[in-house]
Amino acid sequence: MIRVGIVGGTGYTGVELLRILALHDEVEVAVVTSRSDDGMRVDALYPNLRGNIDVCFTRPDVDTLASCDVVFFATPNGIAMLMAEQLLARNVKVIDLSADFRIKDAVDWGKWYGMEHASPDLIADAVYGLPEINRSQIANANLIACPGCYPTAVQLGFLPLIEQGLIDSRHLIADVKSGVSGAGRKASVATLMSETGESFKAYASSGHRHLPEIVQGLSMAAGKQVGLTFVPHLVPMIRGIHATLYAPLETDVTAQLQALYEQRYANELFVDVLPAGVHPDTRNVRGSNNCQIAVVVPQGGDTVVVLSVIDNLVKGAAGQAVQNMNLMFAFNEKQGLQTMALYP
Amino acid sequence: MIRVGIVGGTGYTGVELLRILALHDEVEVAVVTSRSDDGMRVDALYPNLRGNIDVCFTRPDVDTLASCDVVFFATPNGIAMLMAEQLLARNVKVIDLSADFRIKDAVDWGKWYGMEHASPDLIADAVYGLPEINRSQIANANLIACPGCYPTAVQLGFLPLIEQGLIDSRHLIADVKSGVSGAGRKASVATLMSETGESFKAYASSGHRHLPEIVQGLSMAAGKQVGLTFVPHLVPMIRGIHATLYAPLETDVTAQLQALYEQRYANELFVDVLPAGVHPDTRNVRGSNNCQIAVVVPQGGDTVVVLSVIDNLVKGAAGQAVQNMNLMFAFNEKQGLQTMALYP
Amino acid sequence: MIRVGIVGGTGYTGVELLRILALHDEVEVAVVTSRSDDGMRVDALYPNLRGNIDVCFTRPDVDTLASCDVVFFATPNGIAMLMAEQLLARNVKVIDLSADFRIKDAVDWGKWYGMEHASPDLIADAVYGLPEINRSQIANANLIACPGCYPTAVQLGFLPLIEQGLIDSRHLIADVKSGVSGAGRKASVATLMSETGESFKAYASSGHRHLPEIVQGLSMAAGKQVGLTFVPHLVPMIRGIHATLYAPLETDVTAQLQALYEQRYANELFVDVLPAGVHPDTRNVRGSNNCQIAVVVPQGGDTVVVLSVIDNLVKGAAGQAVQNMNLMFAFNEKQGLQTMALYP
Amino acid sequence: MIRVGIVGGTGYTGVELLRILALHDEVEVAVVTSRSDDGMRVDALYPNLRGNIDVCFTRPDVDTLASCDVVFFATPNGIAMLMAEQLLARNVKVIDLSADFRIKDAVDWGKWYGMEHASPDLIADAVYGLPEINRSQIANANLIACPGCYPTAVQLGFLPLIEQGLIDSRHLIADVKSGVSGAGRKASVATLMSETGESFKAYASSGHRHLPEIVQGLSMAAGKQVGLTFVPHLVPMIRGIHATLYAPLETDVTAQLQALYEQRYANELFVDVLPAGVHPDTRNVRGSNNCQIAVVVPQGGDTVVVLSVIDNLVKGAAGQAVQNMNLMFAFNEKQGLQTMALYP
Repeated sequence: MIRVGIVGGTGYTGVELLRILALHDEVEVAVVTSRSDDGMRVDALYPNLRGNIDVCFTRPDVDTLASCDVVFFATPNGIAMLMAEQLLARNVKVIDLSADFRIKDAVDWGKWYGMEHASPDLIADAVYGLPEINRSQIANANLIACPGCYPTAVQLGFLPLIEQGLIDSRHLIADVKSGVSGAGRKASVATLMSETGESFKAYASSGHRHLPEIVQGLSMAAGKQVGLTFVPHLVPMIRGIHATLYAPLETDVTAQLQALYEQRYANELFVDVLPAGVHPDTRNVRGSNNCQIAVVVPQGGDTVVVLSVIDNLVKGAAGQAVQNMNLMFAFNEKQGLQTMALYP
Repeated sequence: MIRVGIVGGTGYTGVELLRILALHDEVEVAVVTSRSDDGMRVDALYPNLRGNIDVCFTRPDVDTLASCDVVFFATPNGIAMLMAEQLLARNVKVIDLSADFRIKDAVDWGKWYGMEHASPDLIADAVYGLPEINRSQIANANLIACPGCYPTAVQLGFLPLIEQGLIDSRHLIADVKSGVSGAGRKASVATLMSETGESFKAYASSGHRHLPEIVQGLSMAAGKQVGLTFVPHLVPMIRGIHATLYAPLETDVTAQLQALYEQRYANELFVDVLPAGVHPDTRNVRGSNNCQIAVVVPQGGDTVVVLSVIDNLVKGAAGQAVQNMNLMFAFNEKQGLQTMALYP
Repeated sequence: MIRVGIVGGTGYTGVELLRILALHDEVEVAVVTSRSDDGMRVDALYPNLRGNIDVCFTRPDVDTLASCDVVFFATPNGIAMLMAEQLLARNVKVIDLSADFRIKDAVDWGKWYGMEHASPDLIADAVYGLPEINRSQIANANLIACPGCYPTAVQLGFLPLIEQGLIDSRHLIADVKSGVSGAGRKASVATLMSETGESFKAYASSGHRHLPEIVQGLSMAAGKQVGLTFVPHLVPMIRGIHATLYAPLETDVTAQLQALYEQRYANELFVDVLPAGVHPDTRNVRGSNNCQIAVVVPQGGDTVVVLSVIDNLVKGAAGQAVQNMNLMFAFNEKQGLQTMALYP
Repeated sequence: MIRVGIVGGTGYTGVELLRILALHDEVEVAVVTSRSDDGMRVDALYPNLRGNIDVCFTRPDVDTLASCDVVFFATPNGIAMLMAEQLLARNVKVIDLSADFRIKDAVDWGKWYGMEHASPDLIADAVYGLPEINRSQIANANLIACPGCYPTAVQLGFLPLIEQGLIDSRHLIADVKSGVSGAGRKASVATLMSETGESFKAYASSGHRHLPEIVQGLSMAAGKQVGLTFVPHLVPMIRGIHATLYAPLETDVTAQLQALYEQRYANELFVDVLPAGVHPDTRNVRGSNNCQIAVVVPQGGDTVVVLSVIDNLVKGAAGQAVQNMNLMFAFNEKQGLQTMALYP
C-alpha cells in the first residue's frame, strides 16, 4: 500500500479521486487538504463517500504531504507550480490535474492562463500524462501533467489519422460538447441550473485555454504544426464530453479507417473503438475511465468524421490521473478503474 | 377572421400551432383532426390550452376541411401529398409542415423518405416556405412546403456567406444539435427520458433526411452545387436547435462579417444578429419564432464559424408555418408570434 | 398608458415582470433599476427580450421612480421596506414581490427574516395580494404584499376545505416541491446544475420562511389558528411548484369535493380545477399565470389529498404582481397574462 | 463461483443486475435471456458493459436455466410465477424482482395486478427479500420475492417508529417521488423526455400497486393493520426515490428519535442514518445499494417526518436482489455492492 495525498480535495476532480481511490487495493488515502474546510470530515462534505473514507480535511502543508508516496493536485491553475518542486525534492511523486505543467512554452502558458509561471524550469521534466502516447515515459516519471478533458477527447479521436498522415492537418475542426461539471464546483451565476438547464450554447469560440494544449499534442504527433478550429459547447447535463472531429481526407482510405482505429487502440485498456455504424453516447462512459470512439466518412465524401466520448471527470481528469499513478507504481493499469457506466 | 384547419393535431407541431393560433387575432381554429382521438376535447389532451381552445378532434375529412381558408398539415411524412390536391382544388390554401413537398426531385425524395411520391406534379407548385429567401413567392402561393427544423437553422446561418460567395462552398460543415422534441410525440424506447436524459450523442452521421433539403437550398443560393457534411446530435433538453457551421473563407473578410450579417437580416423580423462577441443560447429563443445568429473567425484563421439557434417547434415548424400564413393572407407578419422566450 | 418602474430588475422575478409587461397594452416600462448593472441595456443582460424592451438599467433613485404610477419591488428581502414610504408619499403605488410586508407581526417577521423591520407602521396598510381572497381590497390598495410562491400554491389548494370547515385544521401537511429558480439568480454552489441536476431532496424541513406566511393566511381563512407541517423540496427542473396537501376529513364529504372546488373557483380567471381523475402537471402552467388543482380522497379513506401547481415565477411572483396591478388600475384582469404554457 | 441466470435481461433491472454481477467475485453470469433479442450480444444492446460481459441473449428455457445455481427474474409481472416452480423443483434458487410473490393474499394480488395468480401455492414459501427485517429467513430461502422500489424506501423509513409503537399507525402518509426509470424500458409516450423533462406531477393518487405491499409489510411490523395514504410522484430525473413520510407521534419522543434510528440500523450495511440536521439527497445513493435516512420533528410539533432515499434500480431492485443472493449463498453481504454514488 502506498500513501496518497490530495491537494484541493473539495472540487469535483478531488472528490472523484476519492471515489476511485477509496476502492483501490494498493493505496491508502492519507492526506486530503482544503483551506476552506480544514478540520471537517471529508464525508460530511460528500455524503456519497460515507462508510468508505475515514479522514478529515487538513490545511495544505508540505511537511505533511511529504509523508506520501504520491500527491495529486486537484487544485485551480497556479497552485501546483508553487508546491511541486518541494515535494519532488523530498521524493514525492506529483500528479498535477491542473494545467500548470501541460504547455511546454512557459510564455505561451502565461498568455493563456493570465499569470507568470512560477516553476518554468520544471516544465521540461513534466511528462504529459496521456498513456496512449506516453505510457513508457509515464512509468518513469516523477511529475505528471495530466491532460485536460477536452484535449483527451480530441487527441484520442484524431491520433490515428494524424499519426498515419491521412488528413490535411492544417484544417482540423473540433466541435466539442461538455457537461457543466467541467466548470467546477464554485459559486457562479453562469452555471446555475436555472442558467444552464434546458439550453445549449457555444462559448469561448474565439479561443479557449485548451486550444494550445491540443495543438501542441497533435503537432507533436504530426511532426509539424497543425491548424485547428476548436469550438467548445455547454450541454445541459452534468458529466460527459462528446468531441465531433472533422478533417479533410488526403487520400481515399475510407474502407481502411475502421481497421486502422481498431489496430491503433487494440492494446489500450481504456480506448474502445465501437463497431462500425454505432454512435458513441456519453452516458455509456459516465463514471468510467473509458473513451469510446467511432469513425465515419459520410456520403462517401472527402471529410472524415470522428466521434469520441469520455467522462470529463474520469478519463478527462481523476481516472486518467489514477491510470498514470498505476503506471508510475507498476500497479495493474485497471486497478481501481473497473467501474462500468450506469445505464440508464 | 379566416377559418383554419389542422390535420394531425395531436403531435408536437400540432399543439404548437394551436398554442400560437389560439391568440392570433385574425383566425378561428375551426377544425382539428386526429384519427386516434376523434371526439375528444383538444384541451383534454393538452391541459396547457384549457380556457383557450374550445374544440374537439374530428376524423380527417376533405369535405369538412374544405370549409377552411387554410389547412396546416402537422402530420407524419406521406399524408399531405394524399390530400393536398383535393383541398387546393376547392380553393383551400395548404401549408405542409411535413417533408412531402420540400424536395424538388420526386425520385430523390422517394429515396430519402422510403416511399413513392403520390403527387409528384404538385411539387413544382409548392413554394419553399423560408420567408427570408422567398417572401414574395410565399405571399402568392397556395401550397407551402415548410422547411425542416435543421434546414432552417443551417440555411439562415450560411445564407449571407453563400450569397456573397465568400466561402468555399464545396467544404461546408454543419454540426447541429437538437432537443428531443424533434423526434416527435410517439411511443419509442430511444427517446425515453431514461435513454436521452443526462447524455449526448450524434446520430444518423452517415446521412440524415434533412441533408438533401439543406443542400438543395444552399445550392440554389450559391448558384452551384454545394458540398456539405451534416452531423446531427441529440441534446438532453426538450426544445431548441443549435447549428455550429464551419466553412473555409476564400478571402479575408473577417472585419466585414458582422456588418454583412447585420445588413442581410436588417429587415427580417425573426432573424436577430447578436452583437459581436455574444454567443447565442437556445433558451433565448425557446417558445419564440426568433433565430439568433453570431459569426466569428477564431484566432484570425481562415475558417469562419457561424452559430445559429432556433426553437425547433416554432421557427423550425409551427411558428414559421404561421409566419407563412401571415404572408399569404397579408396579415401583419408578427401577428400571433410576439411571444418572447421564457427566462430562465 | 401608465408608467411602471421595477426596482431590482436583474433577478428572475424582475426579468419575468419585464417579459410580461413588454406585451401589456396599458403600461410603459419607464424605469428599471439595478445597482450592479447601471447603464447596461436591459436586453444585453436578457437577450430573450431583444426587440421588446428598449431601456437601460439605472441606479435606484426615489426621484426617478416617483415619475412612475406604480413601482414593483423585485428585490431581496429588506429593500422595499426602506423605500416604500417615500414612494407612497408621492402617490406612487407599490407592489412588493419580496417578503417585507407579508407578515402582519413585525416581531415575528424579524425572527424569520433575521433583521429588524424598518417600516413596521406600514405593515397594517399593506394588502396581501392574493386576488382569490382579497380582490376588492387589492383594487383599493396603494401597497401590495405579493404572496410567496409556496404560500400561493398551498393556500389556493387548502382554501375551499378550510373556508367550509371540512378538515381538522390542526393537522395540515403541505409536502411541496419547487424548481430551482425559486432560489434566485445569485452565485451559489448549492444551486449549480452539477449540484441540483438529476437529484431530489428536501430542505429546511425544520422551518422555512414561508411557513408563518402560510399559517397566517390559512388561520385567517379558518377563523382560528391552524397547525401545519410544511416540508419544501428541490426538484431538478427550473420552474414550477407542486404542492401535495394532506388533511384529515372531519365528515364524509368525498362525493361533494369536486363540486366544492369547482364552485369556489368558478369565477377565478387563473385558478383551474381539473376534471376529476386528472393529475396536474407543472409543465401545463409553466410560463402562465394559472394554478391547476385536483382533489382526491384515496381509497375511500378519511384523508383528503389536494394537488396544486403553479409557475413559481408567474402566479408565484411576477404574474400575480401584474394581476394585482390590473386590479389596482381597473385594467382587464387578464391583460398581459394570456400566455399559455409551452407544451412540450 | 456459482452460475447465475437472468430471465428478462433487456430491461433496466436486468442490465443493472449485469452491471453489478459482472464485477462480483463469486459468480459467473451464465445465461441471460430475452425473447426479443435472442442471439444478440448483450454488450451490443448495452455498450456500457463492453469488455465486462461476454455473453449473448438466449430464449428463456427451463432446461438451460436449470444449469444455474440461482436465477433472477427481471421480468414484467406474471412471468416468474409461470417458471419458478419448475426451477425450484430442479434445485435452482429463484430471486424474483417482479411483484409475483410479494403479496401473501393471491386474490388481493390478482385484484391489483389484473390477472389470476398462476402459482398461488408457492406464495407461502416465498420470503420477502428485505434483509433489514428478514435476514435469517432469506439465508435459508429458495424463493425470494424482492421488494418493490417504493416499498423499500417507505418501509425502511417507517420501521423504527412502527416497531416501537411510537406513532398512530392508522394515519400514515407517504409522499414519495421517483425518477422515471421506475417506469421501465418500454416504448411509451408518457415517459418520453419531452413529456417528463422539466415537469413534476403526482400519479395514481387513487391507488398504486405498491400500496398493498407497503401496508402488508408495515402491518406485519406493527402487529396490526395500518392505515396509509400513499401518493407517488414523477421527478424529472432518471434514478432515485425520495420518500417523505409523515405520522402523528403518540408520545413526545422527539429527543430520542435520532438515537432510535441509529440503533435500529447500527448493524445494517446498507442503511445509513444521517447526522441530525442533514437532508438526504437522491444523488448520494445513485448507483449504490445504500438507503440514507433522516428523521425530524418540525417546529416541536406532534408530526414526525422521515426522509428516506434509495436508488430505485439498486436498493430498490437489482442491488437488493444481489444482497439477497449474497445472504442465500453465505457470501460477504457487500460483495459486488461496494460502488459509491457518483458525485456530481
